[in-house]
Amino acid sequence: MEYFDKTYHPPGTSPGTLIDNEEITADKSTISVLDYTPHDFIEKELSSAEECAPYLEKDSITWIHLQGPIQADTLKNIGHIFELHPLTLEDILNKGQRPKIEEYDDLLFIIMSMPTEINGTIIIEQVSIFKGENYIISVHAGSLDPFELLRQRLRKTNSGIRQKQADYLLYCILDLIIDQGYPILENFSENIETIEEELLKASANKNTLADIHRIRRELLLLRRNLWPQREVINNLLRGENALIHKDTSPYIRDCYDHTIQILELIENYREMAAGLIDMYLSFTSQRLNEIMRVLTMIATIFIPLTFVVGLYGMNFSHPNSPWAMPELNWYFGYPIIWGVMIAIVAGMIFYFKRKHWL
Amino acid sequence: MEYFDKTYHPPGTSPGTLIDNEEITADKSTISVLDYTPHDFIEKELSSAEECAPYLEKDSITWIHLQGPIQADTLKNIGHIFELHPLTLEDILNKGQRPKIEEYDDLLFIIMSMPTEINGTIIIEQVSIFKGENYIISVHAGSLDPFELLRQRLRKTNSGIRQKQADYLLYCILDLIIDQGYPILENFSENIETIEEELLKASANKNTLADIHRIRRELLLLRRNLWPQREVINNLLRGENALIHKDTSPYIRDCYDHTIQILELIENYREMAAGLIDMYLSFTSQRLNEIMRVLTMIATIFIPLTFVVGLYGMNFSHPNSPWAMPELNWYFGYPIIWGVMIAIVAGMIFYFKRKHWL
Amino acid sequence: MEYFDKTYHPPGTSPGTLIDNEEITADKSTISVLDYTPHDFIEKELSSAEECAPYLEKDSITWIHLQGPIQADTLKNIGHIFELHPLTLEDILNKGQRPKIEEYDDLLFIIMSMPTEINGTIIIEQVSIFKGENYIISVHAGSLDPFELLRQRLRKTNSGIRQKQADYLLYCILDLIIDQGYPILENFSENIETIEEELLKASANKNTLADIHRIRRELLLLRRNLWPQREVINNLLRGENALIHKDTSPYIRDCYDHTIQILELIENYREMAAGLIDMYLSFTSQRLNEIMRVLTMIATIFIPLTFVVGLYGMNFSHPNSPWAMPELNWYFGYPIIWGVMIAIVAGMIFYFKRKHWL
Amino acid sequence: MEYFDKTYHPPGTSPGTLIDNEEITADKSTISVLDYTPHDFIEKELSSAEECAPYLEKDSITWIHLQGPIQADTLKNIGHIFELHPLTLEDILNKGQRPKIEEYDDLLFIIMSMPTEINGTIIIEQVSIFKGENYIISVHAGSLDPFELLRQRLRKTNSGIRQKQADYLLYCILDLIIDQGYPILENFSENIETIEEELLKASANKNTLADIHRIRRELLLLRRNLWPQREVINNLLRGENALIHKDTSPYIRDCYDHTIQILELIENYREMAAGLIDMYLSFTSQRLNEIMRVLTMIATIFIPLTFVVGLYGMNFSHPNSPWAMPELNWYFGYPIIWGVMIAIVAGMIFYFKRKHWL
Amino acid sequence: MEYFDKTYHPPGTSPGTLIDNEEITADKSTISVLDYTPHDFIEKELSSAEECAPYLEKDSITWIHLQGPIQADTLKNIGHIFELHPLTLEDILNKGQRPKIEEYDDLLFIIMSMPTEINGTIIIEQVSIFKGENYIISVHAGSLDPFELLRQRLRKTNSGIRQKQADYLLYCILDLIIDQGYPILENFSENIETIEEELLKASANKNTLADIHRIRRELLLLRRNLWPQREVINNLLRGENALIHKDTSPYIRDCYDHTIQILELIENYREMAAGLIDMYLSFTSQRLNEIMRVLTMIATIFIPLTFVVGLYGMNFSHPNSPWAMPELNWYFGYPIIWGVMIAIVAGMIFYFKRKHWL
Repeated sequence: MEYFDKTYHPPGTSPGTLIDNEEITADKSTISVLDYTPHDFIEKELSSAEECAPYLEKDSITWIHLQGPIQADTLKNIGHIFELHPLTLEDILNKGQRPKIEEYDDLLFIIMSMPTEINGTIIIEQVSIFKGENYIISVHAGSLDPFELLRQRLRKTNSGIRQKQADYLLYCILDLIIDQGYPILENFSENIETIEEELLKASANKNTLADIHRIRRELLLLRRNLWPQREVINNLLRGENALIHKDTSPYIRDCYDHTIQILELIENYREMAAGLIDMYLSFTSQRLNEIMRVLTMIATIFIPLTFVVGLYGMNFSHPNSPWAMPELNWYFGYPIIWGVMIAIVAGMIFYFKRKHWL
Repeated sequence: MEYFDKTYHPPGTSPGTLIDNEEITADKSTISVLDYTPHDFIEKELSSAEECAPYLEKDSITWIHLQGPIQADTLKNIGHIFELHPLTLEDILNKGQRPKIEEYDDLLFIIMSMPTEINGTIIIEQVSIFKGENYIISVHAGSLDPFELLRQRLRKTNSGIRQKQADYLLYCILDLIIDQGYPILENFSENIETIEEELLKASANKNTLADIHRIRRELLLLRRNLWPQREVINNLLRGENALIHKDTSPYIRDCYDHTIQILELIENYREMAAGLIDMYLSFTSQRLNEIMRVLTMIATIFIPLTFVVGLYGMNFSHPNSPWAMPELNWYFGYPIIWGVMIAIVAGMIFYFKRKHWL
Repeated sequence: MEYFDKTYHPPGTSPGTLIDNEEITADKSTISVLDYTPHDFIEKELSSAEECAPYLEKDSITWIHLQGPIQADTLKNIGHIFELHPLTLEDILNKGQRPKIEEYDDLLFIIMSMPTEINGTIIIEQVSIFKGENYIISVHAGSLDPFELLRQRLRKTNSGIRQKQADYLLYCILDLIIDQGYPILENFSENIETIEEELLKASANKNTLADIHRIRRELLLLRRNLWPQREVINNLLRGENALIHKDTSPYIRDCYDHTIQILELIENYREMAAGLIDMYLSFTSQRLNEIMRVLTMIATIFIPLTFVVGLYGMNFSHPNSPWAMPELNWYFGYPIIWGVMIAIVAGMIFYFKRKHWL
Repeated sequence: MEYFDKTYHPPGTSPGTLIDNEEITADKSTISVLDYTPHDFIEKELSSAEECAPYLEKDSITWIHLQGPIQADTLKNIGHIFELHPLTLEDILNKGQRPKIEEYDDLLFIIMSMPTEINGTIIIEQVSIFKGENYIISVHAGSLDPFELLRQRLRKTNSGIRQKQADYLLYCILDLIIDQGYPILENFSENIETIEEELLKASANKNTLADIHRIRRELLLLRRNLWPQREVINNLLRGENALIHKDTSPYIRDCYDHTIQILELIENYREMAAGLIDMYLSFTSQRLNEIMRVLTMIATIFIPLTFVVGLYGMNFSHPNSPWAMPELNWYFGYPIIWGVMIAIVAGMIFYFKRKHWL
Repeated sequence: MEYFDKTYHPPGTSPGTLIDNEEITADKSTISVLDYTPHDFIEKELSSAEECAPYLEKDSITWIHLQGPIQADTLKNIGHIFELHPLTLEDILNKGQRPKIEEYDDLLFIIMSMPTEINGTIIIEQVSIFKGENYIISVHAGSLDPFELLRQRLRKTNSGIRQKQADYLLYCILDLIIDQGYPILENFSENIETIEEELLKASANKNTLADIHRIRRELLLLRRNLWPQREVINNLLRGENALIHKDTSPYIRDCYDHTIQILELIENYREMAAGLIDMYLSFTSQRLNEIMRVLTMIATIFIPLTFVVGLYGMNFSHPNSPWAMPELNWYFGYPIIWGVMIAIVAGMIFYFKRKHWL
C-alpha cells in the first residue's frame, strides 16, 4: 500500500489535459451499454465510444459503463458526445480523486471511492459517474466489474429499477459502492479481535506490532477516502437537484445512513487500534517486568551465596595465627556454612514473598 | 462482544428485501396489543399480524408490540396493513442500525438503541417504533420484554398515560429506553473505582489491563450507539412534527436532558479509562524501578566483596618472593580483610542513602 | 468521590414521581422567607410550606429559600402553591442534574452546580432556582447555607439589591454560585505547582501519582458540572426572556465572563495535569536510567576483575609442565596481576567518561 | 509563574466594589494626557483624576493614560467624570480578566492581554481601554510604559495618527499590544530549537525536561490569554460599531491577521513541545538500551569465563581416582583452558555481531 | 528550518512602513511584463517600476511579475502607479504572512504560500498577487522563478489562457502554486514508507528518530502555511467577487479540490508520523526486552553453576572431621558435580522453554 495514491500532472500543466498515464492495452477495457424502459431492455458491448451517440437521443434510460483501464481517446470522444466539461474528464483519468459531486447545467458529476480487498490488501478504486436527464455514464478503472449484480437485477422484466427513473439507477449504483464497506469492516473487526486475544493471552510476537500498524494505515486510508462521500450523499439528499426526484429521497437517505454508519465504525476501529498500541506497550513492559523479576530472584539469591563460598576459598594461612580463617578448621565448619547459606536463601524468599515479588 | 454488530444484505441486494436472517422458531415471538381510552382498556395477545387491522380504524390509542425474533412474514403483513415504507421494514430486520428518526407523511419511524447487561456483558438491542396519529407499533428483537413496567402503569384506570395522547405514550417508551443507561453507567462507575483502588494499592495484576481494555471497548460501543439518539430526541423536541403536541414538549425535553447526561457520563468514563491506562503504565514502570533498585543494591554490594574474596583465593606462591600475596601470611590478615569488606559495604550504603535509593 | 453522582428513579417510573430518596429528619431543613421593597424588609423562618402562599400575592419581592435535605411533601406543597411543573420538582429531588434553564409561561426554572470543598474533597451541590415575576424560590440540599452573605447585603436599607427588581436578585444568587469556583481553582493551582516542584526536585513518591490522578478526576467532575452553566447564563444573556430586564444585562454578562474564565482555567489545569503524567513517566524512566547506569558501572568494572582473580585461583599443577600456570610462580606475579587489574579499571573508566556515562 | 493569575473579590461581594487590592504608594502611578488635533498638540502629566474633566468637553482627540498601580479612588473619580459602568471599573482593578469587548451606548470598553518578558519569565499584563467619541482612556497596571513609541509618533506634526480620528489611535494602541507577541514567540522558537538540538545530539540532561515543561506552561498561559483577543478584534472588524469608521477597517483587519498568526504559531509551538516530550522519552529509553547492551555484553562474556575458572578452582582430590579433575594434571591443561575461553569469547562476539547488538 | 519564519517591524512601528529588510543587490531582482490579447503578445523585462505605467492604460491583459529580492523603492513606485494600499505593500515586504485574500474596491490582493524543496529541506515561499480588472501583479521573493512553464503556455498563439480573461490567468497562477504541494507530498510518502520498513525490519538507528521528528516539523510547517489557502480559494469560489467571472468557477473549484486533498494528505501523514513514534517506542522497548532476555538466560544459567564450583573451591579441611567437605574426596565426586550442573542447566532450559522465554 502506498500513501500517495494520487495521479497528477506536473504543476503548471494546462487544465483539462488528457494523456494516458500508462501504456494501456485496449483489449482489457470494455464499453457496455444498457438501455431500458419498463418493457424493453437492450444490453450491448460497444467497440468504440462513438457508438454511444444514438442512445443519447432515445427516451429510454441508458447506462453506459466503462470498465478497465481508461484510454484518453475514448474519454475524449465520450466527452465530445455528451458535452462534458474537460476538467471532469481529467479527474477521471487522474485517479485518486477525492469523492465529490459537481453540478453542471443538466448534469451531475460524481466521484466515489470504492474500497476493495485484493489478496488481503485494501485498495481504493475510483468510480466516476455522470448523471444526465435519462442516462448514466459510469467509469471504473479496476479489473473486476462490481456492477454485475445490479445488471442481473435489471435484466428481470419485473425489476423495481426498470419501473423507476434514472435517479433510482443512480441510487442503486451508489448504494452498491457504499455497501462494499460492510464486508471490509467486518474483516477489520475480526482482525482486531484476533490481535486482542493474542495480546491478552500474551502470545503476541513481532508481527503483532506490524499488524496493528497495518490496520491503522488501512483505516486511515479508508477514512480519508470515504469521509467526503458523506458530503456527496448529503448533497443529493438536500433535494436541491432537479435531477433527483422526491420519491427517491428515502432511498438516498438510506444510503446516507449507511455512509454515516461506516464512518462511525471506522472511527471506532481507529480508537480500538490506538487502544491496541497501548495494550501492546503494556504487554511489552509487563513481560520485561516478569523477566526482570526472575533475574532479580536468581541473582539476589545466588550472589550472596557465591560471596560466602568465595570467602572460604581464600588462602589465608598464617601457620600460628588463630585469626587465619579458623572456621576452616572447625569440626562442623562445612555443615555450619551450609546452614548459614540455607538461612540466607530462606530469609530472602520470605522477604520477596512479603513484597509480592514471587 | 463483537465489534461488528450490524446485520446487512450483500452489496447489490435490492432495497427493501426482507429475508429471515436466521432460522426462527415462531413460538418465541409474540404480538401483543394494548388499546385504550381514558375509560376503556383492552389487552390482548395476537396470533397473527392480520389481527392488527381492526385496531387501526378505532379512535382509541393502540399500542402494538412485537417481542422476540422477528419473522419477515409478520413484518410484511404489518407493513401492508399500516402502509409502511419497505426500507423501514428492512431496517427493523437488519439489526444494528444507527438510532434515527424518519418522517413520513403521517408517520414517524424511530430506531433506538437500548443497552442491556446480560451476564456482565453489555449488549445493544434495537427497538424500532412507528408512531401514527393514534397508534404506536414497537418492535424489540431481544428475549426480555423491557416494557412490562409501562404496561402495568397503563392498566391502572387513573394512569396519567391514559389521560393523554399517543405522543405521551411515545415519550414513555423513549424515556424507558433511555433510562436503561443509568444502571449500566452506575455499574461502570463501580468497575472504574475498583480498578483505581487496585492500581493505587499496587495490587493490580494481569487481568487489570484486560479489564481496563474491556471497559474502553464497552464505552466505545455505548457511545457509538447512544450518540445519535441525541439527534433523534432533539428532532422531536424542535416541535416541528405535527405528531408531537406542545404540552408533551417538557417531557421530551426531560428525555433530552437524560440523553445528554448519559453521553456526558460516557465521555467522562472514557477519559477516566484513558487515565487508568496511564496509571497502569506508571504502576508497571514504578514496579520495575523498585525491583531494579533491589537488584542493584544487592549486586553492587556483593560484586566488590566477591572480587575481594576471589582475590585471596588466588594461588600465587613463589616460595622466596616477598611479593607473592604477603597478606595471606599476615597475622591479622583475615580480620583485616573482613574490616575492609565491612567498610566497603558501609560506604556503599551511605552513598545509596544519600542518593535516596535505599 | 464517586463517579456516578446522579439520583434516579428506576427506568419506567412515572414522570414527576416525588419520593423521599433517603430517610429525612425534618428538623435539619429550613424554609426561610425574605420579603422586601426598597423601604420595607421582612425576614422570617417558616414552619411549613403552606405559609409561603400569602407572599405570592404581595407586590414586594419575595425570596423563599429551602435549605437542607428536601422533603417530598414540602416540595409538593410549594409546587401546588406556585403552580410548578411536576418534572421540575422531580429534578430538584433527584440530585445530580445537569445545570439547565427551562422557560415556562411566566417562570424560569434554573438548575446550577455549586462546587464546594469539604475536608479537601471537592463535591458538587445542586442549587435549584425558580424565578417568577416578583419572587424567587431557591433550593439547596447541602448542609451549609451559602447565601448568608447575600442576606447580609439585603438587610441594609441602602442595599443596591433592594433598589432593583427580582432579576437583579437572581443575578446576585447566580454570581455567588459561580464565584465559588474561584477559590477552588486557586487551590488546584497550588496543588499542581506543588506536584510540579516535587517532580522537578525528583522528590516524587508513590503518592504523587495518586495525587495527579485525583486532580484529574476532580477537574473532570468540575468540567462536566460547570460546562452546561455556560449555556444557562448565555440563555439569560440573549435577553429573550421577558423576566430579565435590559439594565440587568451588563451584570449577567459579567456572570458569563466569570463562567467562561472558570471553564478556561479548568481546561488549562486539565492540560497541566496531563503534562504532569508525562513528567512523572519521564521522571520514573530517568530514575531507572540512573540506577541502571550505576549498576552497569559497578558490574562492568568488577566482573572482569573477578574473572582475573578466579583465573589465578585455579589449581592447575602438573609438576613438570612449564605450562601449568607459570604466572603463579613468577617473582612479581602478584604485583603484575594488580597492575593488570588497575589498568583494566582505568581503561573502563576512561571509556565510560568518553561515552558520558559517568 | 503562577497558574492562577486572577484577582477576585470573595464570592458574594457586591458587584462594582472597588477596593485597593494591595497597599499602593501613589507616587508610582501617573496620569498623562495627550490632547491633539492635526495642528495642536498638548502633552501633560496630571496630578489628580479631576483634572481630566476639561478635556472631555473639547473637540480635540484626548488620550488619557493611567500607568502603574491603580488606585481605587482615582478610578472612581474617572468613572464619575466619564460616566463609566461600575462593573468596568471593577474589571480594571481585578487584574487577570479575559480579553473582552463591551459596548455601551456611546462607549467601547476593551480589555487586552499584553505578554511581556521580564527576566526570562513571561507574564501577562492587562491593558484596559475605554473609547468614547473623541477620547481614549487606557489603563496599564505594569511598571513599564509600553506606549512611549506611540507617543513619539504622535508628537511629530506630520504624524499620520494626528490626521485621523480616535478610532485610528485605538487601532495603534491595539496593534502595539498585539505585536508584543512577535518577539516573545521568536524567543520560544529559539528555545525549542535549542532543546531539539540537545536531544538530537544526546546531550540532554535533567534540566531539559524542566525546560520543556516550562515552555508548555508558558504556551498554555499565552494561549489562554491571547485566544479571546481574536473575538475582540473580530468584533471591531465586523464594523457594527458606530465608533469604528469604515476607512479604519483595513487596519483593524491587519490587527486581526496578526492575532490569528500569533495564535497559529502558539498552536504550532505547543505541538512541537509535545513532540519534544516524545523525543525526550525516546531519547531516555534509547540511552537505557545502549547502557543495557553494554552491560549485557560484558556480563554475558565474562559470566561463562568466570564459571570456567571457578571450575578449576575446585579442590576435588581423591588421591587414587582418575575422575578427580584429571584436567588439572594434564601437561597442556592451562593453555587448553585458555583456548576454550578464547573460543567462548569469539563465539559470543560472533553471535552478538550477527544479532546487530555490537 | 526555523520555526519563526515571519519578518516583522518592532511593535509600535507606523503601519505601512516600507524598509528594506536586508541589504539587497538590485541586480538579482527582475521585473518582467507580459501583455497579451488573443492575437498580440508582448514580453519584456523592465529596468524600473515606472515603466509599468503605460500598460495600465491599455485594454490588453497585463501580467507584471517581480522576481527575486524585493526592493522597498520598487514596491513604493508600483504602489503609487497602481494605487495600492500601503498595508498590502508592507505585507509583501514582511515575508512569512499567512495566506489571505483582501478585497479593495476594484482590486483583489492575495497572498499564497508556495512550498519548495531545496536540498532536501522544505521551505515556504510567499507569493503575493494583485488582480485588477485587466492586470495581474505577482511578487515572488525566492531565487527560482516558478512561473516559466506558465509563460511558455502563454507564448503559444493558440493558448487557452490567451482566449480568456485576467481571472483565468489568476486561476493558472494559483493552480501552479497549489500543485507544487503534490511532488512534495509524494516525497513525504516515500520517506514515511522508508522509515516504516526500517522499523519493521528492526534496522532502525539513532537517525530514525531524528528523521521522524524532522518529518513532523515539516508537516506542521506545511499545514500552518497551507491551511489558510483553503479559505482564500473558497472566498474566490463563493463567486461574490465581481472580478471572478462565472465560467472560471469550475476551474477555481478544481483548485479548491486540490487544496483540500493536499490538506487531507498532510493530516494523514501527520497521523502516520505519530504512529511512527509509537512504533519507534515499541521497537525500542521490544529490543530492550530481547537483550534483557538473553542476559537473563545467560546469567540465570551460569550464576548457580558458579556458586556450585565456588562451593567446592572452599578450603574446609579439618583433618579428622568427616563433615569437612567429604564430597571432595569421593571417588566419583567430580563427575557427579558435572552431572548436578548439567541437570541444573537442563532444568532451567526446560523451565524457560515452558515460559516461552527462549
